[in-house]
Amino acid sequence: MGVKVSPPHIALKPGERIDALGGEGLVIIQKPGLLRFTTDAYLLAAFARPGRGETILELGSGTGAIVLLLAARSNAAKVTGLEIQPALVEMACRNIALNGLEARARVLEHDLRRERSLEPPGFGLIVANPPYIPVSAGCRSPSGPLAQAKHELTCTLRDTVRAAARWLSPKGRFVLVHRPERLPEIFAELGHVRFEPKELAMVHNGPGAPACRVLIAARPAARPGLFVHAPLLIRDAAGAFTPGMEEVFAGQWPSRR
Amino acid sequence: MGVKVSPPHIALKPGERIDALGGEGLVIIQKPGLLRFTTDAYLLAAFARPGRGETILELGSGTGAIVLLLAARSNAAKVTGLEIQPALVEMACRNIALNGLEARARVLEHDLRRERSLEPPGFGLIVANPPYIPVSAGCRSPSGPLAQAKHELTCTLRDTVRAAARWLSPKGRFVLVHRPERLPEIFAELGHVRFEPKELAMVHNGPGAPACRVLIAARPAARPGLFVHAPLLIRDAAGAFTPGMEEVFAGQWPSRR
Repeated sequence: MGVKVSPPHIALKPGERIDALGGEGLVIIQKPGLLRFTTDAYLLAAFARPGRGETILELGSGTGAIVLLLAARSNAAKVTGLEIQPALVEMACRNIALNGLEARARVLEHDLRRERSLEPPGFGLIVANPPYIPVSAGCRSPSGPLAQAKHELTCTLRDTVRAAARWLSPKGRFVLVHRPERLPEIFAELGHVRFEPKELAMVHNGPGAPACRVLIAARPAARPGLFVHAPLLIRDAAGAFTPGMEEVFAGQWPSRR
Repeated sequence: MGVKVSPPHIALKPGERIDALGGEGLVIIQKPGLLRFTTDAYLLAAFARPGRGETILELGSGTGAIVLLLAARSNAAKVTGLEIQPALVEMACRNIALNGLEARARVLEHDLRRERSLEPPGFGLIVANPPYIPVSAGCRSPSGPLAQAKHELTCTLRDTVRAAARWLSPKGRFVLVHRPERLPEIFAELGHVRFEPKELAMVHNGPGAPACRVLIAARPAARPGLFVHAPLLIRDAAGAFTPGMEEVFAGQWPSRR
């Protein structure tokens, strides 16, 4: 869904286009074949639901879809994204400017496997939509920007969790979206840094379908006790988005906490 | 739902009554205030779905509801239950006789924290509906047969998982029902004995409700990769059992594997 918005100060490069992002009137520059935001961005931005004035860090922010959604919503405070790929950082910065969110959002080029001082030193909320696919799982070795975002080439689940442990405030929350196939490994990695899973939601494509995504919120050194939300079905039996998914698009999911 | 079945060779004791169990025409002696089977028995017996001729062990079999359900279903082979409370073992043995299942089922008195030689030495399927509540969680110290079945007084989650590791065949499956609040701990305990979670199903009381139970199937030293089934809703918005729950009662859930 192309949108006719192109402020004179934001230049589109060959092959790029501007798409609508969410119900807040946001727009995002994307390049087909490079990296495009998915439903995961809406799921993560909604499930994270930042508290008022909370400082937010995204680990691996791509072209900035989640940074934009979190920065645009009323409760959000300053949002920082870290991204290893320079081409994506450059697009994300243009996306922030395109939406006039420079005062509330920034994306920095950084390999999150490395130490780095950030301001603030501890974030209240860290979110991540890490690469889902272990490198060993594929027969051929993938390459390119898209492969780097989808396969654990430069960032494994362990790297992501360790980065969260490095930058999260002791009273903060770490929220991630991942594939349910890897849930035992996710819990194990969280356990290694003494993050306790506190909330979980399974996402299914439709009625009777197995889970396709899992959302998890964890807290450092918290009391054990996991709250498992009502399942989210993306589409109903007729193929239309469910009311729950409309809540996701509006950043209002899960409705019951 | 009292049932007018009382073969002359099975004596009821004061306060006991005979209830219907499932759709297979089974009956079960229960004593209100002692221990009565719950929906959990149907959930576990269905989710376990034994293969043809598989040898089955239940850890903590109470009055034998799950042993009866598994023994009565067509594919089941010999079913053994272990139970620490002599009064429950005695009732379970009468329940097996009452249903004429002596050739296919037995319940032995045993504290599953202790070693014991069993025949066969390795079971193809081990199931457990362990006490859900850690002893530290309650203010007062509970006691009595019911408390022993509900609280981790004589059997913790760790005890159950270790017992499963002791008696499971290397190619076998361990299936348990538990509270979703404790899912991270369950995965951690399974990890300690190198059991890999392979299937999971969340159970919710109704639409929009958080999960109230979780079913997990694990295999020793298996490849990682968890399949998360479609969620089971026990009742619909009108309060009636869902088609999924009818499948559970019939031992046919989950329909899609």
